[in-house]
This record gives sequence, C-alpha cells and structure tokens, in this order.
Amino acid sequence: MSLLTQTVAAITPASSEAMTAAQERQSVLTKPLGSLGALEDLGTRLCGMYGECPPPMPEPVTIAVFAGDHGVHAQGVSPWPQEVTTQMVGNFLSGGAVINALGRQVGAEVLVIDMGVAGEVPQAPGLKAHKIAAGTFDMTQGPAMTPTQVQAAIDVGIEVARDCVARGSRLLVTGDMGIANTTASAALISVFTGLDVAEVTGRGTGIDNPMLAHKVSVIEAAIRINQASPNNDPLQTLAALGGFEHAGVVGYLLSAAALHTPVILDGVIACSAALVARAIAPSAADYWVAGHRSVEPGAGAALASLDLVPLVDLQMRLGEGSGAALAVPLVQASARILREVATFDSAGVSHK
Amino acid sequence: MSLLTQTVAAITPASSEAMTAAQERQSVLTKPLGSLGALEDLGTRLCGMYGECPPPMPEPVTIAVFAGDHGVHAQGVSPWPQEVTTQMVGNFLSGGAVINALGRQVGAEVLVIDMGVAGEVPQAPGLKAHKIAAGTFDMTQGPAMTPTQVQAAIDVGIEVARDCVARGSRLLVTGDMGIANTTASAALISVFTGLDVAEVTGRGTGIDNPMLAHKVSVIEAAIRINQASPNNDPLQTLAALGGFEHAGVVGYLLSAAALHTPVILDGVIACSAALVARAIAPSAADYWVAGHRSVEPGAGAALASLDLVPLVDLQMRLGEGSGAALAVPLVQASARILREVATFDSAGVSHK
Repeated sequence: MSLLTQTVAAITPASSEAMTAAQERQSVLTKPLGSLGALEDLGTRLCGMYGECPPPMPEPVTIAVFAGDHGVHAQGVSPWPQEVTTQMVGNFLSGGAVINALGRQVGAEVLVIDMGVAGEVPQAPGLKAHKIAAGTFDMTQGPAMTPTQVQAAIDVGIEVARDCVARGSRLLVTGDMGIANTTASAALISVFTGLDVAEVTGRGTGIDNPMLAHKVSVIEAAIRINQASPNNDPLQTLAALGGFEHAGVVGYLLSAAALHTPVILDGVIACSAALVARAIAPSAADYWVAGHRSVEPGAGAALASLDLVPLVDLQMRLGEGSGAALAVPLVQASARILREVATFDSAGVSHK
Repeated sequence: MSLLTQTVAAITPASSEAMTAAQERQSVLTKPLGSLGALEDLGTRLCGMYGECPPPMPEPVTIAVFAGDHGVHAQGVSPWPQEVTTQMVGNFLSGGAVINALGRQVGAEVLVIDMGVAGEVPQAPGLKAHKIAAGTFDMTQGPAMTPTQVQAAIDVGIEVARDCVARGSRLLVTGDMGIANTTASAALISVFTGLDVAEVTGRGTGIDNPMLAHKVSVIEAAIRINQASPNNDPLQTLAALGGFEHAGVVGYLLSAAALHTPVILDGVIACSAALVARAIAPSAADYWVAGHRSVEPGAGAALASLDLVPLVDLQMRLGEGSGAALAVPLVQASARILREVATFDSAGVSHK
C-alpha cells in the first residue's frame, strides 16, 4: 500500500462526542454563552480534532515552509526573477524573513522544505532537502509534474507532518515560497471550484493590470492544454497545474488529519492545496483552520468552498505562512479558555 | 495644576519623523511593499507613538480591568444581577476568568481596579482598591457621578497608567467589568457621535428584544434628563452618563498618551471612553490601537468616529479586555517585523 493510500485510510472525521462535550462546557464557563463568538466555535472544533475535551494546549507549533520553482515563470507571470525563490530560502534559513520574525513572535519552529527550488540551497539547520527537480515544467506546455514527481512530493509532505508530530508538535502551520506560485494556485482553484480563472486570479506579490490580464490568459491556456477538469483524478489535476510545494502541502494536510493534529492554512497556496486534499479525502478538512483571509481572490473563493471562516483579516498577501502564523495565538487562546476558565459553579458567580 | 490638566498638557502628537522613517524601512525589508497590509500601517503608527524607528518591542504588557457598578441597573437594563460585578472581580483575582486565561496566553499581567464595585472586594495581589462609591447614581434621575467623583475616577486611571509605565510596561490594554456598563457606553456614544440611541445600543451580555427596546428608552431618558449634548464640557457629559470604570479608562488613555505608550482599546466601554478622552485631548487618539470589532453596534460607531480599524473581528462581546488581549501578539508582530526582518540588500535578495 502506498504511503498516500495508507495515510488516507487512517483519516477519520473529527470526534462528534468531544465536540458535544465542548459545547456543553462552553455553556458553563464564566462568560455569557456565545460571547466569545468565533473563538468558541474554534475551541469546540479543536476538541473534535484532538478527540478530547478540554483539548490539549496546541503547542509546540511547527511552521513548515514548502518551497519550489515553477516552469510557468517563463511565461512572464511575475515581475520578480526566479532566483528570488532560492534567495528567500536562504533568508528563511538565516532567520531574516518575515516568517522567521513571526515564528519567534508566536514561539513556533520554522522548517524549510526544499521541494524543488531551481537554485542551490545551502545546507543549514532547519532545512529539509527533498528537491524533486529544479522547478516544475511549464504548465502551458503540458503537465507541470510527472505522476512520479507528484507522488514523491506528496510523500515528502506526509513524512514532514509525521516527523513534526513524532517530535511533539501539536499544531502545524502551512507556509510556502515559490515565485509564480499564485499562478499555479489560481489554476487549481479555478478547476476545483468551477469559478472563472479571472475571478480567482490576483496580483500575487504585486503585478499591474496588463500583467494580470496576461496571467489570466496563461492560466486559461494551461487548463485548456491539460484538459483539466473537476471530473479528473485530483492527483492528475495537481500534476497538471500544481507546484512541488502544492503537492507537499497536500501530503502535509492529509498526514496531519490522519494524526488528529490541527493545521492552520495560510493563504492562496495552502487553500488551493486544501481543495486538492479534500478531493482526495473529504474528512481531512475537519482538521484545518483558516488562518487568515489573503487579499488574493482565489483564497477567499477556496475558503468559501471549504466552508472555513478565517481568523485574521489584515489585507495581507505575503505568503510564507505569515497570515497563518498570526493566527497561532488565537487558536491557542480558544483551547486555553476551555482548559483554564472557571465555571459559574466553581467561581461562585450567579447565572442570569 | 490638577493631575488631569498636567496630563493633557503633556500630550503631543505622534512623531511624524519616526513614521516617515518607518515607511521608508517598510519599503526595503524583504517582502513586497504593502504585502503585510494593515500590519505595516500598524508598525508605522507604533514608531510614531514611541518616537523611534524601529520601535521598541511592545512588552511587557499590562491589562488594566476597571470595574464598577451602575445605578441605572435598577431600571432593568440587564438580565444579570448586580452582584455579578463583585463576583466576577473575585473571579479575576483568583485567575479564573477569560481575561486571566488570555493574559496568560499573551504574557500579560492583569490588574483589577475597583473603581466603584457595589460589593466587598477581597484584598488580593493584582487588586488596586480605589472605590469611589458603591456604584454610580441612576443616570435616569440625574448625573451618574458628581463632579468630584468623576475627577477622582479620572485621576485613578491616570495614576494606574503612570504606575504601569513606571514599572516597565510598554504596551497597555484596556479592560472593564460592570453589569449594565454597555448602557452607560451607548449613552456616551450617542452623545459624542450624534447617532440615535437605537443605532448604538446593543444586547450587551445578551438581552431579548423587549429588554433592548426598554434599554434604548432608558438611555434616551437619561440623555434628556441630563440635557447631555456634544456642546457641553466632555467631563460634564461623562459625569452625567458614564460609570466609574469609564472615567478610569479616560484617565488611563490620556495618561498613556502623555507617556508615549500605546494602548489597545477593547470593546464598547473602551471605545466610549475613548470618545470622551479625544474630546478632552484630540492628539491622545494617536496612541490608541483598536483591538477588535465588538458585536456591540456602539463600538463600531465609535471606532468609525475615531477613524480606527480593528485588528480582530471574531464576533466577540464579552468585555473584560478579551478582544484587546487577542490583539497583543498582532501589535507585537508589527513591531517585531520592523526590528528583525532583513533588508533586500542585507539578505542579498533581488528586487522586482
């Protein structure tokens, strides 16, 4: 049995017993019922994921940044040179990027996974070297990945989550790096949601109107050439339009679900990978929390399709895991409330 | 010179030099300019408040929970008995309330200030005993506070912020407790924004439609009987319609501004107090950050009037400082990014 088949077979829905217990507990804690809004729902969902009420504290936390390059960059879909992917991986490894600062802020470890960066990545602590190839193929010329490559990339993601949980992590966060990866993400989101490419394609790191129109036409061509359709096998669609980092995140999301470990989704890359992962194993979505609402339109469309409400909405569009990292204390707070707040009876507080 | 006059005289606008330096720094850090959205604006504002770029880390953090009771409770504006204020103060002091859990989550100290709780509050570490009276007067029968009381309550708030900053706090958070205090808040917000009472009055801890309609009529009566108007001295309006905790927060907000220390506003109580404080010293508003958007309609109206965009929006309505506490890591993240993220040049990353 393949690692993916084994992983999918291990995924079970979140525990409804634990969620029922959490709802009852929310009603006896010293606060008006419902007064913590989305934080109450989140705490209840966490109980379902961990299968216990109150839930364990969601810590330690690991942010896994999956990095890869994209053949479609050659089509002129980004104003940034491809070498920036490799340079930013170097920046992550030396602790100088935004995700490093945010990791320190929320007490999370940052792992960097070289899934297929085009350039040479220096060996360093925090790097997991799993380069599948020096970037994907250009999806406007055929599939971005071979079936063997996509399988290998998913397996890396599965192993990364397994390793994190084995080392003690109780909360995982998605991160990504790859110049042109919003192009691949929009292609996946269009296919899996059925929305027009123009509706789900955004400005990525910042492109002007002519480049945006070109990006839309490039994605439309890639979908056409690959005959991508929601009726195809999701792995085939992922191979056709995704990136190595997308495939890595797909494996990571499925593996976390199989291990009853919540994952906070970052922006449009993670959301597009989540659509693929859900198509493979619908119950896996029970284990995902939407970290933030990226300004990329595809992220919002994917979250709506996934029926997830984002915790943070600060008009961010950086990637790296930055929006999801900011949600870590909110996730922890929702669990801590169920663990630590006194009940009306224990605190001697009158009911209304 | 009174403590208030002295405090107001010490308030200067946030530093435009530091904010200009921050904007320049935002453009050379290794991220596309603008990609962190509201977090970039927040970091820039913090530089203006502290008067330096990069800013100091906004830590340690103190959450000051101002507690008081309200004579207007006798009018039947809340389903909760008044004794809950005293009981919840006890819960805060024994560490069992939501604000205690959230304070632990974000590494913040929680202080409780008895501004005028009706019952006996046990002496305990973390309590500051400054009871002005055992609750305010009923504002439907005349002013809720005497001029002497309101002055004393503001002075307490001024001294609390001074003491926090003297002990090292670099970030302050507002908190509050007082059964019926959303009634006083809505009255203040209606007068200071000019909006109808019905537009700014909400369900507080959870009231039904008949009680909401009654609450609106009680507030309208209080405004009429006190001849409250935006043209009156703001201290007179505060005395007429506010609570001891509102006056404490007014002093706290003004004092923090005078000490160039940012304050995160919690929900409708803090927002109503902020309108009073801004009417006294407009530049003080430069030092305030909106922690969250409470579901209380008055909070949104006050934030719009203050031109502040909230960081968190999770449909919360608890009070205590809970929404503002959740924003602490976001505020710290915005400062940390300016302090720790590498520049394109230092990290050897190409520009677009």
